[in-house]
Formats: sequence, structure tokens, C-alpha cells
Amino acid sequence: MSFSWNVSRRRAIGLAGIGVVGAASVGAGVVQAFASETDNSVAFAGEHQAGIVTPAQDRLHFVAFDVITKDRARLISLLRDWAAAAARMTAGRDAGEIGAVNGVPEAPPDDTGEALGLPPANLTITVGFGRTLFRDADGKDRFGIAAQLPPALDELPHFPGDVLDAALSGGDLCVQACADDPQVAVHAIRNLARIGMGVVSVRWSQLGFGRTSSTSTAQATPRNLFGFKDGTANLKLEETSLLKEHLWVQPQDGPAWMTGGAYLVTRKIRMIIETWDRSSLAEQESIVGRHKGTGAPLGRTAEFDEPDPAALPEGSHVRLAHPSLNGGARLLRRGYNFVDGSDGLGRLDAGLFFMAYQRDPRKQFVPIQRNLARHDEMNEYLKAVSLGLFACPPGVSDAGDFWGSALLA
Amino acid sequence: MSFSWNVSRRRAIGLAGIGVVGAASVGAGVVQAFASETDNSVAFAGEHQAGIVTPAQDRLHFVAFDVITKDRARLISLLRDWAAAAARMTAGRDAGEIGAVNGVPEAPPDDTGEALGLPPANLTITVGFGRTLFRDADGKDRFGIAAQLPPALDELPHFPGDVLDAALSGGDLCVQACADDPQVAVHAIRNLARIGMGVVSVRWSQLGFGRTSSTSTAQATPRNLFGFKDGTANLKLEETSLLKEHLWVQPQDGPAWMTGGAYLVTRKIRMIIETWDRSSLAEQESIVGRHKGTGAPLGRTAEFDEPDPAALPEGSHVRLAHPSLNGGARLLRRGYNFVDGSDGLGRLDAGLFFMAYQRDPRKQFVPIQRNLARHDEMNEYLKAVSLGLFACPPGVSDAGDFWGSALLA
Repeated sequence: MSFSWNVSRRRAIGLAGIGVVGAASVGAGVVQAFASETDNSVAFAGEHQAGIVTPAQDRLHFVAFDVITKDRARLISLLRDWAAAAARMTAGRDAGEIGAVNGVPEAPPDDTGEALGLPPANLTITVGFGRTLFRDADGKDRFGIAAQLPPALDELPHFPGDVLDAALSGGDLCVQACADDPQVAVHAIRNLARIGMGVVSVRWSQLGFGRTSSTSTAQATPRNLFGFKDGTANLKLEETSLLKEHLWVQPQDGPAWMTGGAYLVTRKIRMIIETWDRSSLAEQESIVGRHKGTGAPLGRTAEFDEPDPAALPEGSHVRLAHPSLNGGARLLRRGYNFVDGSDGLGRLDAGLFFMAYQRDPRKQFVPIQRNLARHDEMNEYLKAVSLGLFACPPGVSDAGDFWGSALLA
Repeated sequence: MSFSWNVSRRRAIGLAGIGVVGAASVGAGVVQAFASETDNSVAFAGEHQAGIVTPAQDRLHFVAFDVITKDRARLISLLRDWAAAAARMTAGRDAGEIGAVNGVPEAPPDDTGEALGLPPANLTITVGFGRTLFRDADGKDRFGIAAQLPPALDELPHFPGDVLDAALSGGDLCVQACADDPQVAVHAIRNLARIGMGVVSVRWSQLGFGRTSSTSTAQATPRNLFGFKDGTANLKLEETSLLKEHLWVQPQDGPAWMTGGAYLVTRKIRMIIETWDRSSLAEQESIVGRHKGTGAPLGRTAEFDEPDPAALPEGSHVRLAHPSLNGGARLLRRGYNFVDGSDGLGRLDAGLFFMAYQRDPRKQFVPIQRNLARHDEMNEYLKAVSLGLFACPPGVSDAGDFWGSALLA
């Protein structure tokens, strides 16, 4: 599954018969401009979905869809078409031939074209199912799967301080596209939306311009918009026994179709950066519980020094989120910084699009967030406006398989 | 002006005294993750502002500010502070010492921190003045500069089809930050906004995730969200005599303080991509006037083949924008693709943030856009929601100079 781009998106142009000169001229200039470390691809098929423990790519496009059909067969057919397109796009190919069906120029193209000539850029496409897919707002079981609703997909409780926008929350399906080139991530989401016309409708969508977590020990810890290193204590792909304990749904957890999957919590957190920027360095460090420069826990000297929660300020974020205060719970975080323009009040609309994968949110995200919502001194500078919870099934196998085939097929 | 990052943002941490281990630990991991071709810096000072003919960087953060002081001295002081911070940041340094004024942790930091350890990433910071800086909405000359208002900064006419949002249009000042790393661009805008607290207020702001123009013959032509190569016929930095004719304000143009500057038109254009994606390849190519795969003008074979406007469809974009139909007018375009989430109607809110620099918009942007607004078949798929016009003064010289010093000092 690891085609290099020059036998993929470039070849696609040739095959579509757009012109013999096409392949050559697209090839020449584009290599020079775009070839880089992003010239790599991530395998699409596997036991687990890619895009969870995959070393966090630099850019994100996330979308939540409402399913607008009531026809189970159409839903299955869409998931099958999406999987086929995802396998192509993650390998650096187009979603379908640019030259349109059978090369007929009178038909719309099967790929929108904006990623032509771009490398795979480590694109991953990760799909999840919301609670409303199983039982809609009226309690209706549209697709005959309500009996398969995982208890871990329970509605999340209200957290004090949250001011959620319902139009930016929830969704029947979600797709996370991560890539090192944002145009590649946007292209993936846009083509899945195009393929889904008439079956799904975009509910909300979020771009993230920079990762705020590392999911591998080989990655440096990035910084969030508070200016601090974020996710130092994150679960990492190398920690396979911790991943079994905290990330992947195990056979004994049930339902069976979720074995090898994980639950994703999304939370769009607006940061009141103008107020933060007026607070002193000492106060910022006391609120976070780490030094701003090095990322070391307060009182320690290096980023990866173990924090001693008891020695940190009581309301500090690192202390409150520490596993020792949350029954040992840990998360695999995969958040991104965002700026969505301005807020009409003279301020940037900026913050963190938090994403965390886990084995059971009832035992992980919920207790941690309850603790933070009550005591975190950082709350003064935060406003959560969107919340989502999705069951991400295990990986797709190679041949004609699709996400949730064990649930739906 | 070309410090490498490891004697800049890294050194800043050491100087601020955050901890002796800081410099070493920030250094190690970050180099591995981020060092790349973006490890370069662009000179800040010069005859012209950087960020106009500078080879278009991959990412954009653009902001328009309202000036909320009536005090000319405070405005001048802000521009001077901004120039000092811009000189530091474009060299890959912090906006001011992270350890706060004189290393006092009880003061807010002079840099917000999220770019610590990141390379200069070819950051450029380009500043422009809106018409309302000279004469506000009530016709008031707040800063005693109304007599210096350039005639070329005339209010733009209304173009048929535009549905402009006043809150997303205009502005007293604009700042364009371009960089190859979006976190570096966001950091620059955010710190200028922080420095400007009490003097300016964010009016609107726009992120662009991918460039849609090349401004150098060394760059490959990128694609817009219609999937087509965009800006093939753009003015390029190598074409120095064309730049003199079409881009840089000349001494005979007046006013004197604008000599060596240029006028910037910004236009946020929502693309109705869902409708576009349902149109046939043949129709798309006929509307654009180019082949989708190669970017060649219709009927020709290679991207840079000269189009014959008379041979192109009458309502095609390339024909209507061709200099031969617009009195020879040309533009230096510097647009970016954007996705701003979704529109609440089941669609992505996506499009092009158009930016074009020029010597005189009355002779360039206005006639070209009039022609396009009337006849362009692409209009069916476009909706302009924001418009801006800014006078970007010449470059800043090294020592304590600032943008528009010849106008304001």
C-alpha cells in the first residue's frame, strides 16, 4: 500500500487521457516544489485504523456528517465507496479517475483535482460512528443497529463551564483526515463529502493547522497556543502494553464489532489568548504546572522528568490530569491548534481542537474532565464550544471491506 | 538579517534565564522534527516590503485591524514597536524576551511562546493602510493625514454579484504574515495583536492553508479548490521591468510616501464547490479556459503555452482576465485556499482568499474585475463575501524605521 506519488497521482492523469503532455509537465515542476519528507504514505488497511497511533501528522481536516438516508443498503454502499477512495488517496492516488467515468468528459470528474501532483503526505483517514447513528434524536433505530450500541458510547455528561453549540457538536459519522500537507487533508475530506452527496450532509468541520501532540517517542513535543509544550505525558505508539490497557477495545469489553477499535472524544476549546497574554509568566507556569521554556514539570529540569503531583500547585493542569489522581486513566491525545478568524469582539477566534482516543471514555475522559472542570485554574482562559464522541471501529482489511462491516454487513 | 534559528529562538530561552537545561533540551528534539527547507529567513528591511514578490510561502495568516486610539503619537509608537518585533520574528527570534521584561517572572512574557524552537520558515510581515486610516467612516481626519490620502486608495466600486459582509471587509491597518509553517505565521499575527492591545482591535482575520499563486519562475504552479492550476500568468519576481510597470508605485504616481510601495486588494471568495463538483469535466475546462490536468490553455498542450484569447470560450475566465482584454493590465496575485468549517447548510465553507498587489487598482483590479463580474461563467460557482483595499508603503530601513514613516513621522 505504499505507492510513490509519481506512479500514482501522476499516472492517473495519463490514464485519464487528458493529454500526453500532461504527465510530463505535471511531473517536472511539481517534484521540485513539493518533494520532501512528506513523500511517504501510511498503510490504509490493518488490524487497527491508521491515524490513531500513527505519528501525529502536522495538519488536520475533521468533519462530522449527518446521515440523511434511512436506507441501510445505501449507508453500507457509501462506506464501501469511501473505503475504496480512502485506499487510493492514502496511497497518493486520486479518489477516482480525474478524466471522469470511462474517460467521458461529459461526466463530472471522479476526483476534484486539487491534490494532483501532490505526494501522499502521510495521509490517514479515520472513521467513527456517533451515538445518533444507532438511535437518532427521536430514539429511532434507522439502520437496525440499536442493539449493537456500545455502552461506552453513552451520552457524555455536561461539564460545568461548557457552552456547547449543538450545531458544532455530535454527528452520525466522523472522518478525521491527517496529513503533513493541509491541501492533501482537505482534498480527502472534500472528495468523501462529494462521494457522499445525497447520503450524508456536512454537519460541522474543523481545520487544525498544527499538531499539539506527539504519538511517538520519535517526535518532538509541539506547543499549543498558550505557548506551552503539550502532551508530554501522552500515550505513544511504542508503548504497546499501555495501548492494550488504555487505547484498544479488548474482546472482553464488547460489543464484538468494536474489538480493536477505540473511542474518540473531540472538544473544540476556544482559548481566551488575549487574557492569557496579559498574565505573568509565573502565573502561566503555575496554572500549567510546567516551565514554559523547557516544558519541565515545575521544580524539575527537563521535559520528560516525572512530575511529582503532590509538589505541584493544587489547581495546576498537570497535577489535575495526572493518572495518579484519576484512577490511573490515560489518553492518547491527538489535538490540533486552530484559528477560525476573529470573534467580532476584536479578538482572534483561536484555540485547541482536542481529540483523545481511548478504550472507554466512562473510565478515562469523563473522570479526568470532571476533575479538570471543577478545579483547573486554566478554565478561566478556556471555553469549550463543541463536543463529540465517536466509536471508531477496528481497521479495514484489504479486499472490499469497510469500516464497521462486522456491525452492518 | 539571516540568523539561523538555533542562535535565535533557542538563544532567547537561555537569555531569559528560564533554566540552563532549557536551551539544550529544546534544541535536541526540535531540530529533528522541524528542520527542513523552511529553515530559511527572508530579509525584513529593504527598498520594498518583503512578502510581495517574495516567493509565495505555503501558509498565510492575514488580519485587518481597527485603530481604536485617536492619538497619532500612540499610532506611531505602535508601528515602531511592530517593526522591531517584525525584524526579530522574521529572523526566527521571539517577538521579545520570553522571560518577560528584565527577566521578571511577575510580568507577562514579551513573547507568547508557541513558536519557540521553530525555524524562521521564511516568515514575512507586510503592512498596509486602509482608506479609513486617513478619513474614518464619519469623514474625520483622526491622524492629520487626510491630505496624504492616495487617489489610488479610492473606494472600490460595487461589483455585481458581491454579497459583502461589512464586518469582514475594510480595516484601518492590515498585516499579512506568510510563512512555510502556519504556526510561525499565526505566532507573528498573535504577537502583533498582543503588542497592539489598547491601540488596535482585530477587525477580521483569515487563515490560508495553501498558496494558489507562484510569484517566482522557480515555483511550480499550485492548484485552487476548483482543482485547477491557478496564476500561471502571474507577475513574477524575475520580471523586474514588468514589476516596475505593473507593481511598484513610481515617483510620478504620488503621493511621495507611497513610492516603492504597492496597493493590495483582498477578496474572500466562497466557492460553491459542491455544485462545481457536479459539473462535467468538459464544462469545468470551458469555464476556466484551461485543461484541468496540465493547466494548458484549451487547444494548447503545455501549461505555459501562450493562450489565444480569441480562440477561448467567450465567457471563460482566462479569456476575460487576459491583459489584451483589459488594457494590458496585470496583477501580482498572492492568494490562498481556505476552509472555514461548514456553512450550516450541509456544505464546506471553502474557497479562495484572493490577494493581488498592483501599482494602481483603478487601472488594474477594477477594470479586470468589472469584466469578470459581468461575463465570467465562473460566477455561478463564486460568492465574494469580503473586500479590502490597502496602501502598502515601501520597505522599512534598518534603524528604528517603521512602515509609513514618510507619511506619519
